[in-house]
Amino acid sequence: MSHPRRRGALRTRLRELELAALLVTDLVNVRYLTGFTGSNASLLVHAEGDEASVFCTDGRYRTQSEPEVPDLRRLIDRSGSLRLAKEATERGIGRLGFESHVVTVDGHAALAKITGPDRLVATSRPVEHLRMIKDEAEVALLRAACAAADSALSRLLAEDGMRPGRTEREVARDLEARMVAAGAAGPSFETIVATGANSAIPHHRPTGAQLCRGDLLKLDFGALVEGYHSDMTRTVVLGPPAGWQRELYELVVAAQAAGRAALRAGADVKDVDAAAREVIKTAGHGENFVHGLGHGVGLQIHEAPALSQFGVGTLAAGMAVTVEPGVYLAGRGGVRIEDTLVVSGGEPELLTLTTKDLVVVPC
Amino acid sequence: MSHPRRRGALRTRLRELELAALLVTDLVNVRYLTGFTGSNASLLVHAEGDEASVFCTDGRYRTQSEPEVPDLRRLIDRSGSLRLAKEATERGIGRLGFESHVVTVDGHAALAKITGPDRLVATSRPVEHLRMIKDEAEVALLRAACAAADSALSRLLAEDGMRPGRTEREVARDLEARMVAAGAAGPSFETIVATGANSAIPHHRPTGAQLCRGDLLKLDFGALVEGYHSDMTRTVVLGPPAGWQRELYELVVAAQAAGRAALRAGADVKDVDAAAREVIKTAGHGENFVHGLGHGVGLQIHEAPALSQFGVGTLAAGMAVTVEPGVYLAGRGGVRIEDTLVVSGGEPELLTLTTKDLVVVPC
Repeated sequence: MSHPRRRGALRTRLRELELAALLVTDLVNVRYLTGFTGSNASLLVHAEGDEASVFCTDGRYRTQSEPEVPDLRRLIDRSGSLRLAKEATERGIGRLGFESHVVTVDGHAALAKITGPDRLVATSRPVEHLRMIKDEAEVALLRAACAAADSALSRLLAEDGMRPGRTEREVARDLEARMVAAGAAGPSFETIVATGANSAIPHHRPTGAQLCRGDLLKLDFGALVEGYHSDMTRTVVLGPPAGWQRELYELVVAAQAAGRAALRAGADVKDVDAAAREVIKTAGHGENFVHGLGHGVGLQIHEAPALSQFGVGTLAAGMAVTVEPGVYLAGRGGVRIEDTLVVSGGEPELLTLTTKDLVVVPC
Repeated sequence: MSHPRRRGALRTRLRELELAALLVTDLVNVRYLTGFTGSNASLLVHAEGDEASVFCTDGRYRTQSEPEVPDLRRLIDRSGSLRLAKEATERGIGRLGFESHVVTVDGHAALAKITGPDRLVATSRPVEHLRMIKDEAEVALLRAACAAADSALSRLLAEDGMRPGRTEREVARDLEARMVAAGAAGPSFETIVATGANSAIPHHRPTGAQLCRGDLLKLDFGALVEGYHSDMTRTVVLGPPAGWQRELYELVVAAQAAGRAALRAGADVKDVDAAAREVIKTAGHGENFVHGLGHGVGLQIHEAPALSQFGVGTLAAGMAVTVEPGVYLAGRGGVRIEDTLVVSGGEPELLTLTTKDLVVVPC
């Protein structure tokens, strides 16, 4: 596994920041750096090396953490990060970084009581910064997660799972069961199935509403594979599309293609968003594209970088992101099309392989 | 709905704390106070009344928030709590409470930049304090969630779902599907199915391990119904139990009964834990009961109060909690038995109705 390598990369960053150690309290970051998959842990990464680093979890995870974290000193102590702060203080660690976007005001006060206020140094997402660039093992898991979602959707379609009369909720549960059958541990977030006018609600939660002939049907869903999240949206039409539906669909297809075309290493995230947004604006629907173009995806369903008008930064090879423009016409319907892709110097790798041609569900 | 009443109760607390308003940024707390079920929102509760209070979410939830939050001024602004802090500052609100166990060090710095540092007052979980006592609508949802879990387990048993040869993972997915069939939106947390020696791992994640005749099989699972979480653990034996299995089981049954007997309004949470722990200690297994006795349950799977050696406070009528002692023998097997109950002045209401007699799965 690449956990020691990841900790090595973090240590390089700690030395740049002149930190003696970093207290990692974000559970996802702990997982990324150690492989631990339980629900409670913290980690002290020492700038000098793994010999001086310490992992801490509670008694429930004594057995599980042993094989998962074979290569670090392990403490079993329910006081977690406070215990690690005590260790760091006793060992005379000078500048101790903490994750200031994770540690709460109360948590900081408790730490400062142990370390004294001057030892603690706010650090700005050093582990998230590393996590933006996926290594080969991570891309493989994202590929597997996307494949499970693709497979579930194709079987849902093939087995008449989107027939009129079914409810949004039934379709959502069916899709989720098919992802599990395809090897997922579960859905990677709350599945969105939105039919008819509901498809105009960007983050609609499935209801008892029945699918009807003539509806736009929007499905936004993903699979979870060993902690990695896939994310895909497809919008289909139930029966022959009306003119406005086809027009709306083609607009979003064009915007999504423009976004993907702009997606490459070195691009400013604002420019990628703008590439897709411009297409929608030009068609007069600017105010109906109410969200950013996309987001990073990995151990979390939403992570850095944000591809949006308000995003900051440039893309780099190995980043996994979504590209998902949408146009929503309140009371009528909406279309969103979303892929998960991996950025490279040239064309990005497309991980979600379901067609983006308009699928007309026969009915 | 009782959301206005909940905000009224909070206002009473704000006046006691001499706060002009509270900035609520915990999403579960926002849901509790407003009914909003989306993934991003914040709320300014003014001590004077709902007329001066403001709800804020982003553009994705414009449509959804309208029916969900019909009784408050709504702002659609992606800057969320910063926008509300700006409003509060412009309106000259003096002492503005914030949730210091939720707001991060970075978040606090951003707020203080807007309000000035002296206006912000750290407050200690005022909404969580209200949430500990469930109202009748909440108890009804917990009852429904527990019933879905009971129903799923009884059907799993009746339909031979725990037969030797199945894997832990298959049983977990089966149980989850049955909860959904029984009306749940999904599982309320990651289902634990642990067979044989794995049952000695308190928070075991289901694997490809096969159920074998002679195994202890531990199932810890729950259903989610309209945001409310049920939580139940049962341990069964596959085929006739060995002497040590029956002995272990009877010990945990006795400890659990002792915990339930101590569960009533006015009891110190430490004493409830001690009542069960004492039984296990007396049998010489004190060090094999590695976690607290229980926890509050509601809009979150783990919430206040904690029933543990380290817990603080006394029980009150209307609190919903779990009682879940366990004894774990590494390499052999473990038993945990858990109910969800509602505290009252007399006997608590038992919400999880599956038997606690040792179930011997015929095989």
